Order: sequence, then structure tokens, then C-alpha cells
Amino acid sequence: MQYQFSEKVSHLQASAIREILKFTSVPGVISFAAGNPAPEAFPVEMIQEISAQLLEQNPIAVLQYGITEGYQPLRELLKGRMQQQQNFNPDRDELMITSGAQQVMELACKSLCNPGDTLICEAPSFIGSLNAFKSYNVNLVGVPLDEDGMNPELLEQALRENPNTKLIYLIPNFQNPTGKTTTLERRKIIYALAQKYNTIILEDNPYGDLRFAGQDVPSFKSMDTDGRVIYAGSFSKVLAPGIRVGYGIAPREIISKMTVCKQVSDVHTNNFGQMLAYEFMNKVDFDAHLAKLRAIYQQKAERMLSGIQKHFSEKIAYTRPEGGLFLWCTLPDGCNMTGFCQQAVQEYKIAVVPGNAFMVSENDQTSSFRLNYSTPTDDAIDKGIEILGQLTKKLFD
Amino acid sequence: MQYQFSEKVSHLQASAIREILKFTSVPGVISFAAGNPAPEAFPVEMIQEISAQLLEQNPIAVLQYGITEGYQPLRELLKGRMQQQQNFNPDRDELMITSGAQQVMELACKSLCNPGDTLICEAPSFIGSLNAFKSYNVNLVGVPLDEDGMNPELLEQALRENPNTKLIYLIPNFQNPTGKTTTLERRKIIYALAQKYNTIILEDNPYGDLRFAGQDVPSFKSMDTDGRVIYAGSFSKVLAPGIRVGYGIAPREIISKMTVCKQVSDVHTNNFGQMLAYEFMNKVDFDAHLAKLRAIYQQKAERMLSGIQKHFSEKIAYTRPEGGLFLWCTLPDGCNMTGFCQQAVQEYKIAVVPGNAFMVSENDQTSSFRLNYSTPTDDAIDKGIEILGQLTKKLFD
Repeated sequence: MQYQFSEKVSHLQASAIREILKFTSVPGVISFAAGNPAPEAFPVEMIQEISAQLLEQNPIAVLQYGITEGYQPLRELLKGRMQQQQNFNPDRDELMITSGAQQVMELACKSLCNPGDTLICEAPSFIGSLNAFKSYNVNLVGVPLDEDGMNPELLEQALRENPNTKLIYLIPNFQNPTGKTTTLERRKIIYALAQKYNTIILEDNPYGDLRFAGQDVPSFKSMDTDGRVIYAGSFSKVLAPGIRVGYGIAPREIISKMTVCKQVSDVHTNNFGQMLAYEFMNKVDFDAHLAKLRAIYQQKAERMLSGIQKHFSEKIAYTRPEGGLFLWCTLPDGCNMTGFCQQAVQEYKIAVVPGNAFMVSENDQTSSFRLNYSTPTDDAIDKGIEILGQLTKKLFD
Repeated sequence: MQYQFSEKVSHLQASAIREILKFTSVPGVISFAAGNPAPEAFPVEMIQEISAQLLEQNPIAVLQYGITEGYQPLRELLKGRMQQQQNFNPDRDELMITSGAQQVMELACKSLCNPGDTLICEAPSFIGSLNAFKSYNVNLVGVPLDEDGMNPELLEQALRENPNTKLIYLIPNFQNPTGKTTTLERRKIIYALAQKYNTIILEDNPYGDLRFAGQDVPSFKSMDTDGRVIYAGSFSKVLAPGIRVGYGIAPREIISKMTVCKQVSDVHTNNFGQMLAYEFMNKVDFDAHLAKLRAIYQQKAERMLSGIQKHFSEKIAYTRPEGGLFLWCTLPDGCNMTGFCQQAVQEYKIAVVPGNAFMVSENDQTSSFRLNYSTPTDDAIDKGIEILGQLTKKLFD
């Protein structure tokens, strides 16, 4: 028979990154296209120990149905931690466990946006979130980033032109794909604009704990006097993505609606992952664990940056992230960026992600591409950046 | 601030079962209201052994990101099994892993239904699926069940009156909540009606492997000559619900769209659960394992049925399921069913689920309620049925 898909999903396609990633399984290709944590960042022995204990001491709780809101001890522990970090107001806010932070974006959009409502995002932004929003047929409006974060004049213009704006989506720390961090001053301006135009901020913070340089910047949630911030956190980058455990924090009324939506989606997040995350945070010095991860990513970032400085054409601009997993390179004006990325992977066997994959529409112009330094080995970083540098020099010097 | 939720979710509420379940934590209450597998059905020792091996031999694969379609060895194993059971046509169909079978319902509805499109379901039916459909603002139409399954005249009438019907949702084996099984003849009639009105069947089969009496009936998927059946399977009742692993089988084009929708929802199903399910099916004699589960549920069902026969008023009708976890009791015409359920839990401390919880609208009339025999202990079944029997005799004899 002929299939007719719903209007909200008929335009959706598998992410462009996935097409690039196909090349990364070709033998000999060095990939800077992924976004995976470094395998050496997984605390494997501790996880083995905790898993054995969980299944020895509490097997039925691991295996039986759980409640949609999440494993209660993990929720309490995270609430306590968020209160310390001034993100969480227990008189007003609630916390739910989700199947990765991705689910927070989907549930927030499903709960708050009708088809045609406007959702403002950074341009560029994380493709997984953009596709989640698109799958609810929202009017997605991208606001360009400058060095300090989302451009405030263009944000206000977007808010003025789209009075049906329901959400402003931001990744304020070490943004995916650019590696940029929104400054405190810019955060204050953005929060004030959300107040002025009475809209909600969706703050996605998967990388915040991975700062390896500079000073922490207070979250939007910590400045949330009105209850207009939904905060998304994740264990994917600080413990393991394969367990699919994240969390959402928002005013009780919003979490309550998101919980009903989660119930009809996957009933609850897998218990093993939740209980593992809880026991891990409880048993180890979590801040010491984070310090180890930061050291790993700092070393990898510096390795890639020094390779770029040494081997790339000086005509290539690039960001210097203070944390996270990515940096963002920009070709000289008017260059054929997608052609560059194709040549890189096909002739030079180096995979990077073309920047238009992160735009609201893949037809939007950008001359940038994303590099990931968390997944490749040190040797792959050294070798791959040198080879990519040869291509930049050949084309632009 | 004031929150305004989207039209599709603003009418959604936490399930009525959850309200009943609140009473079940009151000390002294015996609950027949749940739907959990029996704890003694979990193969705890084998799971301990497999988990230790997985984390010893393949920790990075457990902890790292996986692909949205699911763990490849598990998909291949399930495809093979489904081909043997004649459910799966490899030239046309594809199989994806989901975070529980619940996710198949959500993804199918999201992929295929626009707001206002009609989705036909059995009346009564599983509340979790009904809420998933409602969360996409479909026109949900319930067709009453008779002894053989969905009433065919009323189904045809519903199809005639709703030419925008996109899906017919059915739980053909040991249906939740009634315990009824759709006969082969009735399945053929329903499939022919789906052909005549060119619509898709969504076949939900979480209990099919738990048949403890009578003969297996071929699935809708096995008679699917046109590619108009989406089949949902689950490990929740045959291994463990806490791992949140299910699967969907459908024509490639539909699975491909559902996979894009899953990607934006939770990226992929947790690896531990998927790898555990694979290793378990690979290492043990899975059919022998199922035989053990069937023996457990047969014993519990017979225990409850013999208690009902002994203690209930003869005015109460009830189903005699050939498998699954539930049976369905019906009070004499004109009785106040919700009053009965309230009195049962508040005065007699026996929790059951009022039948209207499973109707398209909780205002739809029914004089039935659901009993679960898988979760309570044998003693609780004996004692609880005797007490509930006293109430039926007091009210109806």
C-alpha cells in the first residue's frame, strides 16, 4: 500500500551528520565528525562494581516497572546538588528523570508548542534538538551567535516579529557545534528579553560540568525569578551516554505536564541506568571524577588547537572553547564549505561536519564546519589535523 | 508566570489507574490493580551472570552511544525469530528496537496521524496506548468487543463514518484489560475491513508468549499481504519491564519514519537492556524460559478463578483468559461500578481498576472492572478474592 505520513513528520529526514558518519566507517578515515565522549572517560571498573552490587542487593527494583518521574533517590540527590548550584527553587520547581537530555527538548516542545508557534534557537545549534522541534511543526527561527552568545538585537527583532514565541532554546556552555559560551552579561540581557516578551527559556546544559578553562558562568535557571526557565541536564557526558539518563528541572506545573507526556512515550527511564547514576554519585567523589574528565578533554582540546595553529592555513578562523567537546572552524568568505568537507572526507579521508547541518535549514549559508576532539585518539588528532591542514593550505594559501 | 500548554496535551491527565494505585501503598491494602510481572518470573541469577560478562567483556559498547535502530545482533535475532513465526517478510519489513512497546504506539501515531485523524481502538483498551494517541489530538473511536474480539459490524460502521481513519489499534492476545483473545476468523474479517477501507492495523502483542491454555492464533502480521500491519513486541512481560526494551516491525518505509521520530525522542534505547535481552535469548533456551513463565501465570490465574467461583456472587460475570495477566469482571446491569470499586478499596482494602479507566472517555458507561493476578502473592490472591467476594455477596445477593 501507499503510506501517507503526518504533516509534522513528512518533512523530517535522518540527520545530515548520519550521512557523514557513514564515511567514518570506511577503513582509513579519521573522524572528527562524532560527538561521543572519550572511551577512556568511562569509569569502567566502578561501573562493574556498582552493577554487580545492584543486581545482588536489589535485583527486583532494577527489573520491575518504575515510576515515570524517575528513581526517587536519584531525584533527591540531583535536587540537592541543583539547590547548591542555585539552579533549583524547591518551593516552585520540580525535577524529573528523562531518557537522555534529548527527551527534555522533545517533552518541552510537545507540552508547550502548537504547530506554527515560534521557537527561537541559536544559529547554528544542536541538530538533534532542532529536529525534535521540527517534528512538532513549530516555526523555528534561528538567531545568529556573536562572540558573547545570541545576538541581542536580532533576538529582540525575532521576538517582536513573532509574538507567538513559546520557547527560546539555548546551549549556553561550550555550545554544540561552536564551543562558544554565553557571557553572564548576555545571559542577563536574554533573560530580560524573555521577561519583556513573556516567553520561556529552554536551557540545555550537557557540557557545563566539562569546563577546563575560565570561570563558571551562572545558569539561566539560577537567575530565574519568574519560573520561566526549563533546565536540561545529562549523564551522557559525565558518566555514559549508553545508559540514556538525563533530567529536566522546571516549575512544578510544567514538569507535571511533561511527566504525563513521558508516561505515554516510554513509561519510565530504564532503572539500571538511573540506579547506576545514583550509586555512582553517592559512592565516588563526583567532583574529583569530573576533574579527571576535564583533564582528559583539556588535553585533547589543546592537542587539536596546537595542531590547527601549526598546520592550518592562517585564513581559517576557529573558536577556542573553555570546555565541552567541539570547536568551530570558519573558512574565508565566499568559499565553498560543503565542497571543502566533501573533498576532506573523499580525497583526504578526514571527516568533519559541514556547518549547514546545524542551521535551521540546511540551505542556510555558513562557511563553517565542526571539529570534535573527544572521540578520536591522540594519534588520530595529530595525524588528522596535519592532513586537514594540508588541504586548507592547498586551497587557501 | 502563567503557563499555556499546547492543545494536544492540555486535556491530558495522569492515568486514573495512578490514582487508584495511590491507595495500594496504604498499609493493609491488597492490590489487584497493578499490571506488573510476578517478581518470581525474573531470571535474576542469569541476569546477574550476563551483566557481569557484558561489563567485563564489552564495557565500552554498553556505555557508549548506540544507533537509533537498535543493537544489531538483537535486531537480527528477533528478525529470525519473527520470520519463523511468519510475522516478518524480510523483502518488505524492517525491525527497530524501542524503549518498551509503549514507544511503538507513540511513534506510529506521531508518524501517521494528523490532529483530527481517526484512530479506532477496542473499547475497552490499554490506557497507556489510548493516552499516547490522545497526546496527538486524534479522533479516538472505540469499538466494543464481543466474545470473539472487536465487533465487526460496529468496526465497519466506524470505518464508514470516519473515512480519515489512519490506524486500527488492537491487542489481539489476552487483551488488557479484558483478557480476551480475538479469534482467527475475527482477525481475518478485521484484516479484510482494513483492506476495504485502506487503513493500517497497529497490532500490540505484549502478552502473546504468555499463553497457558488453548492454541496460538496467527497474528495479523502473519496474514499481512499488503504491508498494512505495524507489530509491537516487548521484553517487559517475558524478561523484565525495568530494562525498557520493546520492538516494532513494519514495512521499511514506516520503520524508517518512526526511526527518525525515535532519534529526536531518546536517540536510542539504553544499551544495557538491549544487550542483556540479546545475550539472554542467545544463552538460555528461551522457549523453556517461556514455559516456566506460563506455568507461573497459569497457576496464579487458576488460583484467582477458583477463588472467584467459590466466593463471588453468582451475579458477577468474568472472563477466563487463556494467557496474559488480567481478567475482567462485570457487575449486574445498572449497578454503580465506580461506587463498588471505591467501597472495595476504602472499606474492604481491596484495590481493583474501574473499567471506565480503559474507555475512550472516562465518562463512557461500563459496569466492569479489571483484576490482575500476576503481581499479588498467592496468599494475597486467596485472601483478597475472599474479601472482595464478601462485598459482592453483600451488594448483589
